[in-house]
Amino acid sequence: MLKLFYAVGTCALASHIALEEAGAEYEAVRLDFGANDQRKPEYLKINPKGRVPALITDAGILTETPAILAYIAQVFPQAELAPPADPFAFARVQAFNSYLCSTAHVNHAHLGRGSRWADDAASIEDMKRKVPKNVGESFALMESEMVEGPWVMGRAYTICDPYLFTVARWLERDSVDIARFPKIHQHHQRMAERPAVKKALAEQLRT
Amino acid sequence: MLKLFYAVGTCALASHIALEEAGAEYEAVRLDFGANDQRKPEYLKINPKGRVPALITDAGILTETPAILAYIAQVFPQAELAPPADPFAFARVQAFNSYLCSTAHVNHAHLGRGSRWADDAASIEDMKRKVPKNVGESFALMESEMVEGPWVMGRAYTICDPYLFTVARWLERDSVDIARFPKIHQHHQRMAERPAVKKALAEQLRT
Repeated sequence: MLKLFYAVGTCALASHIALEEAGAEYEAVRLDFGANDQRKPEYLKINPKGRVPALITDAGILTETPAILAYIAQVFPQAELAPPADPFAFARVQAFNSYLCSTAHVNHAHLGRGSRWADDAASIEDMKRKVPKNVGESFALMESEMVEGPWVMGRAYTICDPYLFTVARWLERDSVDIARFPKIHQHHQRMAERPAVKKALAEQLRT
Repeated sequence: MLKLFYAVGTCALASHIALEEAGAEYEAVRLDFGANDQRKPEYLKINPKGRVPALITDAGILTETPAILAYIAQVFPQAELAPPADPFAFARVQAFNSYLCSTAHVNHAHLGRGSRWADDAASIEDMKRKVPKNVGESFALMESEMVEGPWVMGRAYTICDPYLFTVARWLERDSVDIARFPKIHQHHQRMAERPAVKKALAEQLRT
């Protein structure tokens, strides 16, 4: 059975939602980042990066959200979470998810994880100050150039949707008003109504 | 015909090498980052992100290295650049490339592009100082946990290989000695001997 390692408030929510959308049998295992679970030896054996998500499958362990999402789409084709047998359409899905992981998520990460890239307290404060501008610009670009609506790829719901929803949940903390991006704002509300999203969030937010 | 937009010294080299490995018919179009070509209106029509690579295909335009690499592998299956019909093996390839784009490349980017994430000159210098440590740690993790050898995924050459080669070419500028990572060092030398790599580099380095 699939086993997903997640922590609350992280990008692992995207994979969690996708597993629900796929109708997968899986177990969700919560790590407590407050207790630094992700750096404990038993978890580093699962994911030496010390990050989430990690997905244990029968074939081995997968990490990295874009890879896990593509895996879920391919292993549960009946859920139609990615365009099958169309390399261009599939690559567009991967391009969107790649932008989320390498640009949008990274811009957000400078708010709470600036110490990854600099040491001085003043530098870390400087990074924090720039987060609203950078995250705002990423979302403005997605709004104008990438998100078709009603779903990211247009009429078909794909693995881009839970990932966008997940990163957009950080906007309030990033001091960016989601209402600036009407398509993404509506997408966010539409996502929140999906049973798979409700179920994954209920699991993650239970105490 | 495929048309690849690249700039010298960027991650677009990975896609360029993959096109050569695939035996694709393509045109390589050089942008001059020194002249800020990537921000000119005619290029922003192709890639509104103002980045490289961008690949024009008959079906539309693709961006983001992991997506372009997966596209090339899928459109030229005879080149066997990714495991076909095995979602787990394909996801491992995508996970490696996702790590390169979202962690290894981002660590490197704080050397020359710190102004993306902070404004003060002191912060940008602080970021630069941390690059050798961060890039070194990414490569140490790839060396110990991800790169199987002789190729990234083991015996099969895949789209991970040109991407690792490309990011490893930045190590010297990042003040990280590639000899610290014996598998990656040998991989780098082995890559440099491939005709596809020689051809892409010759095109990119011609004056």
